[in-house]
Order: sequence, then C-alpha cells, then structure tokens
Amino acid sequence: MSQSAPALQTQKTATLDALYALIRDDLKEVDACILKRVNSEIPLIQNISRHIVASGGKRIRPALTLISSQLCGYKGTRHIPLAAAVEFIHTATLLHDDVVDESKLRRGLASANELFGNKASVLVGDFLLSQAFQLMVADGALKSLKILSDASAIISKGEVMQLMTEGQPETTIENYLQIISSKTAVLFAAACELGAVVAEEPDAEGALREFGIYIGIAFQLIDDALDYSADQATLGKSIGDDFAEGKITLPVILAYANATKEERIFWIRTLSDLNQTADDLEDALIIINKYHGIEQSIQMAERYCSKAKASLNVFAENPAKSAMLDIVDFCMSRVY
Amino acid sequence: MSQSAPALQTQKTATLDALYALIRDDLKEVDACILKRVNSEIPLIQNISRHIVASGGKRIRPALTLISSQLCGYKGTRHIPLAAAVEFIHTATLLHDDVVDESKLRRGLASANELFGNKASVLVGDFLLSQAFQLMVADGALKSLKILSDASAIISKGEVMQLMTEGQPETTIENYLQIISSKTAVLFAAACELGAVVAEEPDAEGALREFGIYIGIAFQLIDDALDYSADQATLGKSIGDDFAEGKITLPVILAYANATKEERIFWIRTLSDLNQTADDLEDALIIINKYHGIEQSIQMAERYCSKAKASLNVFAENPAKSAMLDIVDFCMSRVY
Repeated sequence: MSQSAPALQTQKTATLDALYALIRDDLKEVDACILKRVNSEIPLIQNISRHIVASGGKRIRPALTLISSQLCGYKGTRHIPLAAAVEFIHTATLLHDDVVDESKLRRGLASANELFGNKASVLVGDFLLSQAFQLMVADGALKSLKILSDASAIISKGEVMQLMTEGQPETTIENYLQIISSKTAVLFAAACELGAVVAEEPDAEGALREFGIYIGIAFQLIDDALDYSADQATLGKSIGDDFAEGKITLPVILAYANATKEERIFWIRTLSDLNQTADDLEDALIIINKYHGIEQSIQMAERYCSKAKASLNVFAENPAKSAMLDIVDFCMSRVY
Repeated sequence: MSQSAPALQTQKTATLDALYALIRDDLKEVDACILKRVNSEIPLIQNISRHIVASGGKRIRPALTLISSQLCGYKGTRHIPLAAAVEFIHTATLLHDDVVDESKLRRGLASANELFGNKASVLVGDFLLSQAFQLMVADGALKSLKILSDASAIISKGEVMQLMTEGQPETTIENYLQIISSKTAVLFAAACELGAVVAEEPDAEGALREFGIYIGIAFQLIDDALDYSADQATLGKSIGDDFAEGKITLPVILAYANATKEERIFWIRTLSDLNQTADDLEDALIIINKYHGIEQSIQMAERYCSKAKASLNVFAENPAKSAMLDIVDFCMSRVY
C-alpha cells in the first residue's frame, strides 16, 4: 500500500464541504419535497417516514443527482423531485432490509426495526417506494422512469441474492461483487445518470453511470469493512452487525477462503448455524486480521475509487467535478 | 333480505365460465408474460414467484383489465402486459401482507409465509412490484403509469391504515370502508380503468373505475364475512385468520358496537391483547351471529354489487358487459 500513501494523506482530510456548498439550496428543496410527501394524514406513516428521513445522514444519493446535473450545466428544476425519488427508493430499501427473519427472531437477536415492528417497516417501505414512483411519473419522462424502475428491479434482485448467501462463507468474491453492485451501486449509478438525463446531455450518461457504479461499489466495500473494524467502535458506530446476522461480506469471504480447518468450523458455527457466544466477534476480528481482510477490502475499494475518478476524465475541470472527486476521497477517508 | 331472494337464486348458480371463455386466449398470454418475468436466474425468486403465481387462483384482477378492454372494443395487445402488471402489484401486496410482526411471532402464531420466511417474502414482493413497474414503463404511456402508481400508493396507505386498526374493535364502519377501498378496491378500479385507457375511450374511464371500486369493496366485504363463516370450513377454506391476527373487519365492528360489557371484555382480550384460547373462535362466531354480523356484511356487499351493476348502464348490451355482470353475481355467490 506504500504507493498510495500520498493519496491517503489527502483522504484523511477529505470533506464534503465543497459539495454541500454547491448543492445547499437544491438539497433544501429535496428535503422539502421529501417532507411534503411523507407529511401523511396517517400517523404511523408520518412517524416512521420522519424517523427515517430525519436520521437520513448525508443524503449522498440525492446529492449525486444534484451535483451530476450541475456538472452537466443543468439550470432547471426536474433534478429536485428525481433526487427525492432516489432518496425514497433508498429509504424504502433500508426499511425492507431491516425486516427480521422469523428464524432470526427465534434466535433472539435484536432487530434493527424494533421501534416499529416488521410489518410497519414493510408497509411504510412500500409507501415510500410508491412516493418515488409518483414523483417519477410526475416528472413525466420515460427515460428517468426507465432508469429508476430498472434500478429498483436490480436492487430487489441484489437483496434476494444477498439473502441467499447468508450463512454461506464459501460465497465467491465475484458473487459478492455482483450483490453489492446490484443492491448498492446501481442506485448510485442511476442517481448520477439522472443528472445527465435532466440536462439532456446523452453523451454524459455513460460516464456518470460508470462513476456511480464504481463509487457505489467502493462505498459498500468500505461499509462492509467498517463493520469488522474495531476502531470504528470509538466513533459511535457499532460493529459486528453483519456477523450477528450471518451476512457474508468480503472480510469473511477472504478469511474463509484461506482458513484452517479449525477456523472453517468457527465460521460455520457462527455464521451458518448462527450459534454465537459473547467472545465470537472478537475471535472473528482476530481471524479476519490474520488474513488481512480489512486491508484487502480497503485496497479493493481504492481500486474502484480510482476507476470512479477516471470516469470523470471526460469532463472539464470545474467546481462540480471537483466536488465529485471529493466524494471519492471522502469515501476512503471513512476508514482512516 | 326477503326482497333480494330472486337475485340470490341467480347468484347461487353464477359462474365465471362466460368470462373466461371470452378472455381465455388473453389470459394465457398474461400468464406467459408473468411466467417469463418471474423466470429469474435466482432460484429463491423463481421458487416464491412460481409458488405465488401457481396458487394465483382466479386472476380476477387481470381478468378485469382484459374484459374491460374488450368492453371498450380494444383490438391491440397493450392490455396483456398491463394486466400482468396489475397481477404483479396484487401478488406483491399478498407477500407483504403476509409478513408477520415480531410481536405476533412471539405469541407463537403460525405465519402465512412460513414456507419462505419474512425477509424472503419482503424482498421477493419488492421484486414482483419492480416487475410491475418495468412492464408499465415498457408500455410507455404516462396515463397507465399514473393510474397504477397512484393505485400502488393508495394500496400501501390502506395497508398501513389496516395495520393501525389491528386490535381496535372500536374502529368505525367508515374507517373500515376507507381501508378496504384503499387496500383492495383501488386495484380493482385501476384494473378496470386500464381497459378504457388502452382502448383510448376516455368517456368509459369513469364508469369502469366506478365499477371496479364497487365490485372491489363488495369482494372484500364478502372475503371478510367468509373468514367468520363456519360453513366455509367445509369448503376447504380455513376460517378465523382475521380473528387470530386481531384484524378488525365488519363482522367484529358490528358485534363490538352492540356488545354487552362482558362481550366487550371478550373482544378486548382476544383481539386487542391477542390473548386467545382454543374455544375463543367459536365464541366469537356465536357473538357475531347474535348481532347478525355476517348477514349485515352480505347485505352491504349486495348494495355495492348493485352499484357496480348500475355503473355499467352506460354500456350497450354485449357479451363483455354480460361477463362483467357475471363477476358481480359470482362475488355474491361465494357466500351462498
């Protein structure tokens, strides 16, 4: 990793300040659009939606639509509801992703949606998804409808594929990459591509879509690495969620592929049988570190980040492009 | 009920044979379209989808699109994928409706989706919904997209409203009617309206939509009555599902509104607290029958059926119209 040391230096201080300065007003309008839509007469919808929207964090996906449209010189207003639609699809996925399986419940694991319950999460997720489609229909352009409905179909496939690999540490890296491309990167790609679509710059669509795919994959790689990164615990983010759920991510795949017979038995017991004791997460971290699972995940993320940056080569230097490069650096900075 | 005796006579023998004779070829194409879409490379999607599609029953919703388009003299092919989209929205709703809440699970009730688990039901439901939207986008008409995305939004609202009334036998009849209109009748209405849309007969849209709303409400009223109708048990359909889930339907609303103090305590214990013993369903049936909950539900359904029939007055007599009137009679025949 020595050759990437200077880049790491930049990444350490990477912020999204320049990005948010450029899209501040637009993002406020996106938030207003979202809040208007979730301001339902039905209390449960309003509660869950507001809870999700309020804890929405960085709004990175709608930000990608906004900054991409700026990169393409767009001056209109169509990017606002479409960025909101992107965020609705994301939040609906979050809610549905949190639904806990019966088998899991029976094993007594805490659920991420314990505040509202499984059924409410599902139904309000459906409501949020329907809001996305209504916004897309109101936009009235079949091209954006196609991009987002295709993304939605691929996301749901990716989520199912992920479910099918649960408890299977023998999952291949290729399979894992297909899953994170589908469940995460495709929405990043759609978010970026929409910027070119509203600006009516068809030549920019491919490059922006590519940027989105690569940054999306890198984002998920880092997310998955952080879930086994003990340092993160000090930043207030819990670790070990994926482990507790038997979710198979790159650090585990790498550790399992190289495991001793004893280690394989450990992974089967903890991830396939979900038979876990209090010390198991610590042991998992030790085994993962033995095989450099975190470093290798980070290195792979860096390669996708380089590809993301290269995708923007076709664009002239300007503040919007610079802000998009910041997003790439920010993605990596989360691990340093 | 004596004045409606002649009508009941007809209803007893009502079949959908004439309907299916008119749409047989179209319905085969709808099934082919559905199967092509669920023929996923992902086994879990294929399994669940096929399970749902195979047990799909009467395909009443896509049938409404097909027969409505015939009523409007349509000769093209757009009705096929749109009817499939309607069925996909319905099956997605079925899957999501079957997700069991954590609280319920803890009380040890059996789940309708025990074959696949909560999470798989949610994610495959999302997949089916995404297929609906892809079919609608492929159709390319904003009008049909708007009808179905609006329907989808209202359905999800209706589902949330229903969830909120669970365990609340004091729910009003008005609230109940709003819920069944939203969660059930709106998709019937959209299915019918699409027939006029593809045929480009805007003057027929209102009447067909109205027909769909009324027949949809009647359909749900009968469904809800059947869940407390002991006779149905002999037909192989289980009863008491709504009771077990604490779902509030018209028979319970009527019984609770007129209940003695002791009966109210019974309903609160069984439906609000979900504290049920083996004899409770039988007692529930006795109380419901004491207040004529089933008869009153049927009478209300009959009134909506009359309205549905009246909605078709604007159309000239022809085989398609006659088949749609058969659907109304068939709806009522399920209880006799």
